[in-house]
Amino acid sequence: QSSGPAPDAGAGKRRAAVCFACHNANGVAVIPGVPNLAGQRSEYLESALRAYRDGQGRQNVIMNSMAKPLSDSDIVNIAAYFSVQQR
Amino acid sequence: QSSGPAPDAGAGKRRAAVCFACHNANGVAVIPGVPNLAGQRSEYLESALRAYRDGQGRQNVIMNSMAKPLSDSDIVNIAAYFSVQQR
Repeated sequence: QSSGPAPDAGAGKRRAAVCFACHNANGVAVIPGVPNLAGQRSEYLESALRAYRDGQGRQNVIMNSMAKPLSDSDIVNIAAYFSVQQR
Repeated sequence: QSSGPAPDAGAGKRRAAVCFACHNANGVAVIPGVPNLAGQRSEYLESALRAYRDGQGRQNVIMNSMAKPLSDSDIVNIAAYFSVQQR
């Protein structure tokens, strides 16, 4: 568990609105090639978002730009939100 | 849908045995930081495996080495196997 503030899935949902275009509000993607996020492990989602944001380990034009403005707590909250969505 | 041979989830299961150590045979990971693969979109799994194999877009010490020996049909079959696993 990351040592920062407690994850806030509600704040995560608000911050993740821009993600819904591809990942859908429930995290079950409808676009081929876009991963489902619903029920994914939150630690994995956090590490993927940090990799996209910091350009370390993950290069993807869309996701690097999407993740760039996210703060650490945005990342923890967004990961918490999608990880508790039902498949 | 990729234009290659039809995906063979059975062959994918056999080829994916080495993946089970972290991703579990049913694709529901038990190790923090390791993603669930069960029910994930097959096109996404294929593109992630290719990125790890070809070192384009994804750098991860474990996954780059795991994916290196995979053929294109291995990738399609492994993706097919995990994508049909129940969550």
